[in-house]
This record gives sequence, structure tokens and C-alpha cells, in this order.
Amino acid sequence: MSPFVAHEGRESADAPQLAKRILIGEPLTTEQVNDQLLPKRMALPIFASDALSSVAYGPQEMLMIMLIGGTTFLTLSPWIAAAVVLLLIVVVLSYRQIIKAYTSGGGDFEVVQKNLGELPSVIVAAALLVDYILTVSVSIASGVDNIISALPELNPWRVELAVGFVVLIIVVNLRGVREASSVFAIPTYVFIGSVVVMIGTGLIRMLMGDAPVASSAGYAVHAESLGQAAMVLVILRAFSSGCSALTGVEAVSNGVPAFRVPKVANAKTTLALMGSIAAVLFAGLTTMALVSGVRYAENPCDLIGFDCTGPQPSLMAQVAAATFGAGSIPFFIIQAATACVLLLAANTAFNGFPLLGSVLAREGYAPKALNTRGDRLVFSNGMIVLGVAAIGVLVVFQANLTSLIQLYIIGVFVSFSLGQIGMVRHWRRMLRSIRSGGDGGSRREIYTGMTVNLGGAAFTVLVLMIVTITKFTHGAWMVFLAIPVLAMLMLGVKRYYRDVEHEITVDDATHFGARGDVAIVLVSRLQKPVIKALDYAIAARHEKTIALHVALTPADGEELHRQWQEYSIPVPLIIVDSPFRTFAQPVEHFIRQYREKHGPSVVTVYLPQYIVGHWWEKVLHNRRARRMANQLMLVHGVSITLVPWLLDSSELIYGRRSRPLPGQQRAGRPVALYGGAPRRERRAQRPGGPPDRE
Amino acid sequence: MSPFVAHEGRESADAPQLAKRILIGEPLTTEQVNDQLLPKRMALPIFASDALSSVAYGPQEMLMIMLIGGTTFLTLSPWIAAAVVLLLIVVVLSYRQIIKAYTSGGGDFEVVQKNLGELPSVIVAAALLVDYILTVSVSIASGVDNIISALPELNPWRVELAVGFVVLIIVVNLRGVREASSVFAIPTYVFIGSVVVMIGTGLIRMLMGDAPVASSAGYAVHAESLGQAAMVLVILRAFSSGCSALTGVEAVSNGVPAFRVPKVANAKTTLALMGSIAAVLFAGLTTMALVSGVRYAENPCDLIGFDCTGPQPSLMAQVAAATFGAGSIPFFIIQAATACVLLLAANTAFNGFPLLGSVLAREGYAPKALNTRGDRLVFSNGMIVLGVAAIGVLVVFQANLTSLIQLYIIGVFVSFSLGQIGMVRHWRRMLRSIRSGGDGGSRREIYTGMTVNLGGAAFTVLVLMIVTITKFTHGAWMVFLAIPVLAMLMLGVKRYYRDVEHEITVDDATHFGARGDVAIVLVSRLQKPVIKALDYAIAARHEKTIALHVALTPADGEELHRQWQEYSIPVPLIIVDSPFRTFAQPVEHFIRQYREKHGPSVVTVYLPQYIVGHWWEKVLHNRRARRMANQLMLVHGVSITLVPWLLDSSELIYGRRSRPLPGQQRAGRPVALYGGAPRRERRAQRPGGPPDRE
Repeated sequence: MSPFVAHEGRESADAPQLAKRILIGEPLTTEQVNDQLLPKRMALPIFASDALSSVAYGPQEMLMIMLIGGTTFLTLSPWIAAAVVLLLIVVVLSYRQIIKAYTSGGGDFEVVQKNLGELPSVIVAAALLVDYILTVSVSIASGVDNIISALPELNPWRVELAVGFVVLIIVVNLRGVREASSVFAIPTYVFIGSVVVMIGTGLIRMLMGDAPVASSAGYAVHAESLGQAAMVLVILRAFSSGCSALTGVEAVSNGVPAFRVPKVANAKTTLALMGSIAAVLFAGLTTMALVSGVRYAENPCDLIGFDCTGPQPSLMAQVAAATFGAGSIPFFIIQAATACVLLLAANTAFNGFPLLGSVLAREGYAPKALNTRGDRLVFSNGMIVLGVAAIGVLVVFQANLTSLIQLYIIGVFVSFSLGQIGMVRHWRRMLRSIRSGGDGGSRREIYTGMTVNLGGAAFTVLVLMIVTITKFTHGAWMVFLAIPVLAMLMLGVKRYYRDVEHEITVDDATHFGARGDVAIVLVSRLQKPVIKALDYAIAARHEKTIALHVALTPADGEELHRQWQEYSIPVPLIIVDSPFRTFAQPVEHFIRQYREKHGPSVVTVYLPQYIVGHWWEKVLHNRRARRMANQLMLVHGVSITLVPWLLDSSELIYGRRSRPLPGQQRAGRPVALYGGAPRRERRAQRPGGPPDRE
Repeated sequence: MSPFVAHEGRESADAPQLAKRILIGEPLTTEQVNDQLLPKRMALPIFASDALSSVAYGPQEMLMIMLIGGTTFLTLSPWIAAAVVLLLIVVVLSYRQIIKAYTSGGGDFEVVQKNLGELPSVIVAAALLVDYILTVSVSIASGVDNIISALPELNPWRVELAVGFVVLIIVVNLRGVREASSVFAIPTYVFIGSVVVMIGTGLIRMLMGDAPVASSAGYAVHAESLGQAAMVLVILRAFSSGCSALTGVEAVSNGVPAFRVPKVANAKTTLALMGSIAAVLFAGLTTMALVSGVRYAENPCDLIGFDCTGPQPSLMAQVAAATFGAGSIPFFIIQAATACVLLLAANTAFNGFPLLGSVLAREGYAPKALNTRGDRLVFSNGMIVLGVAAIGVLVVFQANLTSLIQLYIIGVFVSFSLGQIGMVRHWRRMLRSIRSGGDGGSRREIYTGMTVNLGGAAFTVLVLMIVTITKFTHGAWMVFLAIPVLAMLMLGVKRYYRDVEHEITVDDATHFGARGDVAIVLVSRLQKPVIKALDYAIAARHEKTIALHVALTPADGEELHRQWQEYSIPVPLIIVDSPFRTFAQPVEHFIRQYREKHGPSVVTVYLPQYIVGHWWEKVLHNRRARRMANQLMLVHGVSITLVPWLLDSSELIYGRRSRPLPGQQRAGRPVALYGGAPRRERRAQRPGGPPDRE
């Protein structure tokens, strides 16, 4: 956009601003930040929805992989599910330790930074950022899946739906965390409730010998006959897909600052609560899926008897349909709740990503813009970056859940593992500190902490390896590319800021020494904007004020000269030729000559600057003023003074037209102008020198 | 792009500039404009190539339409060809009158404006602009056709080739007219020569009873059996397609200023020469096509026996192959020359369009930017606009000649007709003027002129009607949409400029009256750029200089205050709070308060401005300075002074780092700063008041 055309206008005035207000509400003062904090009942839906919603796709993706080995193979699933639940418990315990130890919300990033140093910390940061983006993509994709499972006719608009939801979430979040939570609290509880009821009903029906039967139970499957090695690999793949149910556990640890006091206690409780609920739901759903004989295939056309032109209903949908009957009210309730909670999960990322972004910005690893709170106190820029990235991913992968899951959990487990390792270091430091008589909490606490995190580290590292092995070729390699690239970028940004900081910090060499004071008013034609610029230059009482005209043709110059005398402008006019029709060079040349004659001097170049009302007007004014400003600012010892001239059209937008200064009538002709009066006044106003320098 | 980051840099310094130099050569001075004028032998290829090249597609499109009526129907073609040639002669004669009467190169536009008033003139202008764009598209499309006829394997890259050629032509033209002509003179002559030779050879062979036979001569055609009315319609359609051979005749009349003196005589001769050559080629080619029995169908698959998966060789190629044998040297020469001359025709538009554009800009009907000559004296912007538009059309129509031809000649004949009508009016005025004893040339001259143009008007209007009737449904409607829209835009632009002009012209109310002089230096943190801004503000010796800090949090403010005292900065620091984290409003508010206390005063706001070296650095500095500049310029009576601070990175680009003013060492700490010395000097430099105001 043209630089000086004040698009951003005044906060209050112009149309976009109004739209902004309607969409995201009135601005909030910085003090109000505390009113925005979350009670537990609100924090749970906000931070737990990610982990909870994972059960909507975790079991499905796990059983889907198992099905590659054929239906009989499915019998092994319970063991794998058990392994996942065990892992979940371990991770939750480990994170309770992190919350206790690091309360600022830096989460894994902070832990690693404090204990393992810079490089690992930026790697974790990169991993988390990638993870947040994928959380949004996966959750939305799965959410849309479940909507389509209930309303198959929406299938053709899969991608459009997904993108639409992301946009919706962005807008809601730009309004600020508080509203977000109140909007989103209910569905989470509905989801938990309804799924629990569904599992319960299912189990009871089973015990009463009338076990629910899934619509897909009848289908046979094209099973590949697997060798031993292949079988092991499939099992491991299934396990790592199942681990997608763990994603989002870290959310709480990154969100501690958003909790009400006592922050730590509240966060820990929320985390524990979340963990147990997630475990129950995961186990329950897997069981019901197996009981009702759900067949969910990576490629629907492998299901013999299934018309694979249409969409394959999600595992959740199939269980719900089997339990309550397809098209029944409870079925729709469950699908709706599932979809909502998945959108909520996406929303979690919109709390985590901007927070992490701002931390990174504060530390200098990311552009400063990520650390500026918007009108509504949220880190708007971070949200927008996340939203755009997620939309990109969704479009590229056509909102296909299965292919997104492949990329998903790498990032999670990278940060898990490094976080846990970091914590082990942390406890060892604590131990040392109390040995040396310093403070560090009770010895017992430390030992439990260390064991827990050691366990966590061992598990997560192992899983990370499994995940890597089983998913690398299925798309995970992209993540392995993205993380280091991001990490390098962060280090680069850090270095850049360090250099600039060093460059601009005041040092002993810094010195007030500028001397000489020349004002050059650039005059193209003698018009009001130019007159105003001259007027202001005169008012500023520079040591020397010169009007400079760059003449493309001699004729222009002469004409101007004539007018100059007619109006007897009280500023000497100098005309320089520009054979090459450039404007900056001749001015630069003139300045150099002037300095050679009169010695060093600070030069202020006055440029009249049109302010227009509509974007299209920019096309009609050539950008000369702007281009000259850009070029002359490169000339040594020159500063640019832009004297704005609001065209009437801008009145429409900014609500006023250019008019004389208050208390100044503009009568009489310029000629009549320098009849002393105004000047004497000016003299009078000046007692020897500006008082503020005495 | 970020406004203050001086992309355009200094003409000489940065990389893009260098590339520019290599591509379009060293800049030229305005005086050199005359050296760029064209002798006849150069003007012919430049301005005539359009009309001449038309024969490459004129006959082809004409016979193609005739073929709809079946092969027997072709026997009528000679009559139609004759009609086209007659029309050509009439038009050429009429334009010789225009050249004589209007020599400024305004061509039809000027004629109509002078004789028929504003609305018709902008309609003509719009028609011409559209016509220029289509000239480029059609010529390029046909050129590519002929290249593909010689090298069928290029067929898949039809569109890419077309776009590539447009880009090439843009670059060549940005170098300026002179080079363009010398580059392009030869092929035109080769084209004329080789085609004449081909026709000659063909005729001789025919007379010797060994008439050439086209490869397509054997094919039968799916002919529709036409009713009487349909037959007439087909004949008329064929005629109007044939008229595409007339396009470009006006080029000369729009290019008169580019001729060497005697401009008029030279232009007239060139036009006559061009006309006769075009007539010969058109007639000759049509004859040879009929003799050799060329079958060219709108839909190749209508040709029974032709494999319509591949490209259909152009009429020119078929005749050449028939005469000299496919794949023979002369065949390739002819195809090459044809292709070249068609590119040349496109090039003609790159002379015409920018010239017309600049005329329109001067008259205020188009953005001023179209009237600024680039480094190489050509109207660069116009060329770029034309090029982009043409590329757009080529892509949309997939460089398909036949569908482009449908749109083509409407514009031409709109301007033809209005031009001729205008000329009739012109002669009548002349007549009146000499009757009333005024000057206006000899009575005889006037009568011939009037008769010629009357004839021209009658013919062209008739043809325009025919063209409209026969082509409207085939796509011409788009042109009928585009022309009025463009015309309306021009009138709008005109009105806009008139209003602005009126708004800014100096009137009796204009008055030097600005009073009071306050400098506000905006301070975020105490760093070198800020010190520099303060330094310059002090050097400018304002009546009052205030340092203003907008504090987002009280802490920031206090810290700054501390530093301020530590360094004992000689400017009073004022701190204002910004609860809503905005920057412009608090400043604005402060200014209002200040004025209430101290009365009206011109306020100069000093903003430190980073100048960075690389585009990506912009992402890392938040745009605050720029946004504030934009917003504060809307505040009444405020001007913005940008004090640039070149980051070292910019040194790479602009070849120097920020350093003290020449002859000023910067030793000592800021604290030591206001030990009189520098100030006494400043005092010394100031004899009472600025001399230039005495």
C-alpha cells in the first residue's frame, strides 16, 4: 500500500475499523488482563478439549492400521490400547511435575531452555509450533469427518467446511479468551457426558447379551498376508497412531498463566482430571468399537460389500449408530458434541500458539509483532499466523484425516521427550542445590519428581523412535524437515535482533553534535500544498530556508519563477535541472554542493504529501513524493518532513477537511502576506532562544 | 512494500537497478528525444507492420468463413476480397487527410475531440486502447500459429510461447523506439519480398499450367446446406473477417510525431506505400490460396481426411508449402518472416498505446503516470499496462486466433467511423472559416478532403454495422461492454483531476499564517536512532522541543525517566499513558491539550525511521513508525519529520553506514554534551534571525 496514504486511519473513524469492532468487540485496557483469567470449570474445556477430543480419532486410526492385518488381527488391539492408556498416565504424571516446577507457561520450551540450553529449546519450540498447526488441521479434519458421517450430503464440501471453521475460530479468538471459553464450555461437558452414557449403554446391552452391532460389522476385508516382521511393524504403527490420543496433554502446562490463583494447584487438578477422563473415553471407545465389530479401513474400497464411492462413517459415528440406532436423536447429539469438541481442540491451539509465540518474541526468537497484544489483549498476530498456516495445511492435504495423522504426533513426542529429559536435569540441579544447603524443596519431592520424569523420558523417547520408524515414509519426513528449518530461522532471528540491539544501544561515542540547520522545501508547482509546506517551514524558523525546484524542462522553471515573483514568496527559489527526469539525484547533488560551500549542516527536506480518501485515488497520484522520501532518506544527514495535505475526498473517511489552524483566519492574498505583523509576533514569541534549552 | 524502506534505492546503487540498466540500457537526457526520430525507411517497418502483417490472417479468416458454405461457395471469395481491397484504399486515402490536418499524433482521438466533442472522443480513445490490446494478442497468436505450422512439435506450448513473446517485446520497447526499429526493420522487408516472390512464383507456375496444389486441397468438407438468408450472412461474416486485413492503418496517423521532418509528407508517403503493399499482398495471397485449393476450416475436424488432433497449418504455410514444397528453405524463410512481422505488428501497438496513453494523461483522462517518460524516454508505464493486458487476453483465450479475431475489428471500425465523421465536420469548419475570409487552405483542397472523408465515413459506418451484426454473438459483445466502461472511467478520471486541481490552486484565501512552532520527538527507548532524532530536533532550534514517550506500562515510563536523567538529556521528557496500547491517540490527545494551553501552533513530530537492507528485515521490525506517521498526518496542523537510521545491513545495499556528519567527531559522553561549546557556536551562527527572511 502507498505509505503515506493513511489506510489505518484513526482507530475510531474508518469502515474497516468499524467492522473490526463488530467482529472482535470494544478494546480492553491492559489492567483488564486479570479479569480474563480462567476458573477451573472454564479451564478444563479450554485446555483439556485437545486431549479429550483426541479420542475421537485415536482409536479409529489405531484400529484402522490393525485392520491391515485382517479382522482376526484386531483381537490384539486391546493390548495396544492398554499400552496407549499406560503411556497417557505416565505423560500426565510427568507434566504435573513440569507445572509444579515451571509456572510461567513456557512449558516444555522453558524447561528445555533452562536445563538443556539454546539449541534443544528452539527445537522444542519449533516442534510445538508445528504441533499446534497440525492440532488445528487434524482436529478440524476429524470434526468435519464426524459432521459428514451424520450428514453425508455435505461430503463434496469437505475442504470448504474445514476452512470455514478455521476462519470462524480465528474470529472468535480475536475477541479474547474469556468469551471463547464461555462459548465453548458446554459442548465439552456434553461430549464427555454423552460418550460416557454411550459406552455405558453399550456395555449394559453387551452384558444383557444384546451387544450392539456396527453397520460395517458384516464387511469382509482384503487382508494382506503379513510376514512376522511386517506384523510387528503393523502393531507398532497401530500403537503410534493410537498415541495420537495423547496429543494436547501439554496444553495445560503451556497455559498455566491463564489459570486463576492458586495457578499451580488449579492447573495440576485440571490436568489430572483431564488425564483420567481421556483414559476412560479411549479405553471405552476402543472396547465398544471391538464389541460392535466396527470395520474402518484406510482405503474404504478394501471393505468388501461397502460402496466406497461415498464417505466412510467415522468410528465414533458407527459406534453411536450401533448403540442408539442411526438417525436417532442421541446419535445426532453425539456427532454434534464430537464435532464441537474437536473444533474446541483446534481452539486450544489458538490459546497455546500465540502464548508460545509471544514468549519466543520476548526472548527474541520470533518477530516482535508476535508479542504485541491486540485491542482485545490477545496476541492477535500469532492467531492469524496459526490460522493461515492451518488453512494452508488443510487445503494441501484436502482435509484428509488419515494423511494428516501421519505428520501429527512427531512434533508432540519431540517436545515430550526433550521436556522430560529437561526435567530430569532440573531435579538433579535441585538435588545439588539442597546438598549445598540451598533451597530446592524437600528431598523426597525431588526424588519422586526425578523418578516420574525419568520414567516419562524413557517412555516418550522410546515412543518417539517407534513413531519415527513407522511413520517417516508415510509423510512424517515433512515434519522432520520443517522442525530444523524453523529452529534455524529462530536462531537467525535471535542473532539479527542481537546485532541490531548492539548497533543502536547508546555508547560513549553517542553524542549530540549535529550542526547547521537548512530547510529545503521541494516545489513542483505553486499550489496550496506547497504553500502550506513553505508556511510550516517558515514557522519552524530554520537558520536557512530554501525553496528548491527540480526542472524537467527549462520552461517549467521559468513559469514557476514568474509566479514566485508575482506572489513575492518570502523564500529564495533555487531551480536545478534534471536532464534525466530523476528527482532525487539533483536534490542530493544540490545538498552536497551546499555543504561544500557552507560546511556541515543538517538538512530537512519538506515534502508536501497528499492524503487521499479512497484506495483507487492512489493510482491517480504518481508516487513521486513517496519515492523521493525513500531515496532522500538515504542521503547522509538528511531528514524528511512530510507536510500532509488532506484532499477533500479524505474528509469522507476521516471526517474533516484541511482548514486553517484554529484561531487563524486566512484572508488577504499571499502578496499581502509579509506585512510584518505575523513576523513581529513571531519575533516577540522568541526571547533570545528556545527556553527549554537554557 | 514498506514505505520507508527505500526499495527504489539510489538509481545507481542496488541490484534491481543494475538489472534494469542491463535490460533497457543507460538513461537518456530529455534533449536526446529528437535523435530518436524515425526516417521513412525505419518508419515503414515500425508503423506499417501492423497493417501488412494483417494479410497473414485476413485472407485465412475470410476463406475459413466461406468454407462454412462448402467448397463451391469459395468461388465467391474473389468478390469479397475485392471489396476488402476497395475498402482498404478508401480508408488509406481518408487517413492521408487526417495526417495532413492533424499532425500532433492524436490521430482519430484528436480529430474526434476537436470536431465531435468530449464523449465521442473518449469513446474513440477507449476503442483504440482496446484495439491496441487486441492487436498485440491477435498478432502474437497468429505469429505463434505460423511458427507451429513450421514446427508442429511446439503445439503444446502455444500459450507459453505467446506470453513469452509479449514479454520479449515489452523489454525491447522499454529500451526505446530507436533500437526497436533497427532490430525490426529487416524482417518486414524480408516478409514483403518473400511473399511477393511466392505469389509471383505461384502465378508463373499457374500460367505454365503447373499450378501449386495445397496439402489440404484434397479434403472434402462437412458443409452445412444454407438457406438464402444464411448464405448472405456467411458472406457478410467472411467480409468482416477479411476486414481484419485493414487493422493497423491508423497506426501511422497516431505516430506522426515520431517521423523525421517533413513529418506530414513523410507520414503520408509511408501510409500510401503501406496501403498499396498491403493491397497487393492481400489480393495475391487470396488468389494463391484459391488457386492451390487451400481448405482452412473453423473446426479442423470438419475436414474429411484431416487428422484434427494435430494443429491445422496456417493458410500462409499451406500456400508456401504448395509453392516451394513443404520443408524447403524458402518455406521456412516465409514462415520465419511471417512470424517476425507479426511480432513486429504487436510491437506497433507498443508505440501507439503509450503515445495515446500519454496524450490522454496530458488531457487528464488517464492517470498522470502514463505521461512520465522513463529513463529511456519511452512512456514505460503505458507499455507495461499494454503488455500485462495483452498477456491476460492471450491466457484467457488460450492464444486461439479465430476467437480473438471475433473481438478484434470492432474497436478499429468504431474509431475509423468516428474519425471520418469528425473529419467531415473539420472540412465544413474550414469551409466556413475561409468563407468568412479566415485561413483554411485552398477551397479545392477542402472539397477533395471532404469528399474523401465523406466516402470513408459512409464505408466505415456501413462496415461497422456489418461487423457488429455478424460478430456480436461470437464474442464481440465483450468489446461492446469494454469500450463504454473504459470511456466512463476516463470521464471519471477527468472529473477527479479537475476537482483536485480546483482544490489546490492558490486563491486569494491562501495565506502564510502558521504560528507557533513545537517539535515533539517520540521516544520509545533511549537508543541511538532516538538520540539522533533528538539531536536533529535540537539542531532545528524549534521554539519548543519536547520528548514524548507513550508508556504501555508504568514500568517502561519510569525506566526511561531514569535513563533520561542519567544521560541528562537537554530536552524535557513528557510521559503519557496508553491503556489501550495505541500510540497515535495519546500523542494526538497531548497535542490537543498543548494547544489549549499555549494557543495554536504548528507541531512537528520527529519519528526515528529504520532503513533496512533486505526485504525480510521488514518482517522483524514492527511497522509502528510507519503506522504512526500515517495516523498523525491526519491530525490537524501536524507535520511528520522522519529521521532515518540506516542499519548496517543497509550498508550492503546502499554502500555506506550511518556515521557522524562530515567534520563532526562524536567523542565524549552525551552527559558532557551540553557543555556550552557546541551551543555557543550555534549561537554564533545565528545573527539575530534567519537572514533569508529579512
